[in-house]
Formats: sequence, C-alpha cells, structure tokens
Amino acid sequence: MSLKLAILASGSGTNAEAMFKAVERGLLDADIRLVLANRPGAKVLERAERHGLPSVCVDHRAFPDRESFDDAVIRAIRSAGADTVALAGYMRLVTPAFLDAFPDRVLNIHPALLPSFPGVHGTADAHAWGVRLTGCTVHFVSPEMDCGPIIVQACLPVMQDESEDELQHRIHALEHRVYPQALQWLAENRLEIRGRRVFLKPAPAGRTAEVPANVLVWPALEEGF
Amino acid sequence: MSLKLAILASGSGTNAEAMFKAVERGLLDADIRLVLANRPGAKVLERAERHGLPSVCVDHRAFPDRESFDDAVIRAIRSAGADTVALAGYMRLVTPAFLDAFPDRVLNIHPALLPSFPGVHGTADAHAWGVRLTGCTVHFVSPEMDCGPIIVQACLPVMQDESEDELQHRIHALEHRVYPQALQWLAENRLEIRGRRVFLKPAPAGRTAEVPANVLVWPALEEGF
Repeated sequence: MSLKLAILASGSGTNAEAMFKAVERGLLDADIRLVLANRPGAKVLERAERHGLPSVCVDHRAFPDRESFDDAVIRAIRSAGADTVALAGYMRLVTPAFLDAFPDRVLNIHPALLPSFPGVHGTADAHAWGVRLTGCTVHFVSPEMDCGPIIVQACLPVMQDESEDELQHRIHALEHRVYPQALQWLAENRLEIRGRRVFLKPAPAGRTAEVPANVLVWPALEEGF
Repeated sequence: MSLKLAILASGSGTNAEAMFKAVERGLLDADIRLVLANRPGAKVLERAERHGLPSVCVDHRAFPDRESFDDAVIRAIRSAGADTVALAGYMRLVTPAFLDAFPDRVLNIHPALLPSFPGVHGTADAHAWGVRLTGCTVHFVSPEMDCGPIIVQACLPVMQDESEDELQHRIHALEHRVYPQALQWLAENRLEIRGRRVFLKPAPAGRTAEVPANVLVWPALEEGF
C-alpha cells in the first residue's frame, strides 16, 4: 500500500530529498502528495519543484497562534489527499490537534540517540558533551517533544578530533538512509505501536543492507537502503 | 606502569570479578591493592577472598554523614597504597573531597548510553523507554552524578521481545569487557582529559578485538578484551 505522504520542512530539506529519491528508485512505496514549508523561500520548495512534486508554503508568521497555523497546515495536507506526515527538519512544534488529525501517522527524525540531546541542537549538544557514540532516531511524534515511540535508531562513533560540522555531515548521511527505511516499514504496514514500544514485523524476504563498519542500525536496514 | 587499584562495590561485584580475571589473564596491568565494600556481607568481599585479594568492609551506616564516611574510605584506600579507584556497582555518591583525593583517577561504569538514563536504574529505564539501542558507558567521575568525561561507550540493540533481565544480562557481559579495557588504557597512560573530552592515544600495535555482530564499541576494544 502506497503511503499518501506529506513532507513538512523548514529549511534545506535534505531529508525530504532523500525521500524523493527513495521513491524514484522504487525503494519507498509512497505517493508524495505534498511538500509543505513554513518559511517562504525554504530550499525544500525548490527541491520539490525540481522533482515535479506539489509544494506549498504556509507561512507561520501570517497566523496569530499555533492553533490557527496548524489548522491551515492540516487543511493543506488533507486537501492534498495525504494521511501520513513526515517531519523533516520542520522547526515547529505540532499541536495536539495536529496529532489528532493524523493519529499514529506523524513521524520525525532527530539527530541524536534519544532521549539523549533532545531539542533543536541535538548534534551540537552531543558533540559538546563528548559522547563516544551518537546517531539519529526516527520516532512517532507524541505531544511531548522528542519523546514518542522509537521506530529505529542508528549510531556511529564520534571521532576524537572531529568537528561538529564533520559529525553533522556523517549523521545526515545516516538519516538519509534510516528515514526512508522507517517510512517504507510504515508503507508495508509492518509497524505496530504497543505502549512506548514499536514492533517491526519481519520482512517477507529478510535481507539486510550493508552499513559501513562502525555503524550500528537497529532494526537492521533492509536491502537497498 | 601497573595501576595501584582500589575497587569499590556495594553488591555482587561482577565487574570487580571481571577486573580480577583481566589481571590474572595478564590483560590488565593492575595491582589490586584493595577491594572495598560499603555493606557487610556484600558478595564482592567473598569474590576478593577467593582471588586472594585484600578486602575490607567500611559500613556507611556507622558514620554520621557522607563526609566522615568518605574520609574513612579515603584513608583505607591510601593505606592500601592505591591511587586509582574503580567504582563497580558502588551505590554511594562520592563527595568532592573524595574526588580531590584521587584527581582524575576515579572511574565508574554506567549501564546506559550516557547522558541517557542516568541514575540507579539505567537499564530498567532504557527498557521502559523503548529505545532501540542502549549499552554502557565508562567515564571519569565528576562531582555531578553520571556526567564526567566519557572514556568509552558500547552499544547493542534492544531486541523487541526482550525482557529487562535479558537486556541487563547482555549489557553486563559488555561491561565486563569495556571496563577492564578502559582501566588498561589508564594503566598505559594513554588517556588524556581535555575539557569534557577524553583522548585515547593510539596503541603501540593497534589490533582490535572482535566484538559480536550488532555490537559497537568506541574506541574499539583491543586484542584480548
């Protein structure tokens, strides 16, 4: 079953681009109904256009409060025919009404091993802390920020002389693999939320993808990702 | 240079036992001068005796406050001729005076990927949260609990049907490898603290140990561990 997907982003949209490509390569079974940005001129809008995807800007500054803004976003998503939402560098907290509109169908990615380093500076905070391992987390969005049930986590070592930029670059590369994978699991109807835990049903033909040495992804990536 | 080591524990002492064995196998260059427990009858005392190691119980309940207790512990460690302290399931917060007595020579292990899940229930908290990856962290002890500079972290996947006990068992097995390794790096004078970051100088002959599939340890374990 194809996902009827809306992608919400605020900036450059590299995770959105990874989704576009995963769809084009036949890896991600999704119909991208809408790419929505909350900032005029967000580069993700250009990217969507280049891939021939419908896009819209809903400028949050034009709304008096979060509720009215989210209401406009919900309407845009629904009129595009989407029922699943991937937040991809979307710098807005979503309201409970937003989550109620798409129950258990809103995903987000965070550039750290949650619950470590929540918030908007995950990679920088991890780098400053001096952790040896960090990574990224794809999770279902719940009302409390960065706390929803975890679908997949990927980790990699922090090199001892590595700059924050270098680390961020490597984490992004990992994000671009695990986020489309998580969406594909959702498309295949293989994710089941039980309390705080997400169960992944086994693949019909369980082949795992190769990941670089010193990278650990769990559940394991499947072929192609 | 042999470490002049004191091991402090409160309970069963499986990490202490892993250190005893690493010394006996010639992996860990340490002279275990003292095994100290703060609870009479702690099993770690029996273990020490079985390995022919000096042990002592300093019962914290016999002291009016933390300062006087730590003072007695400091004196016991010093009179045993130790200058390095490994906390191994030691359920007491150490005082600033304790840390001042052995500057940058007090290590601890925590059964989670710090800064996630600090406190006394690391594994249980990680299990309850539903994380996909967890592990353990060896760090220098600083006045704030579970916040000191990190020497090594090891991570493993949480299986989706795994009980807390099973997870704990697998984390313990990992602890028993990384904690002696961290101490051996200290014995070889290869650890350098710079701010919150710990730099590991390269091994004279850099061979890495095998770790099970789906386990990531960073810095990599060296041969034998």
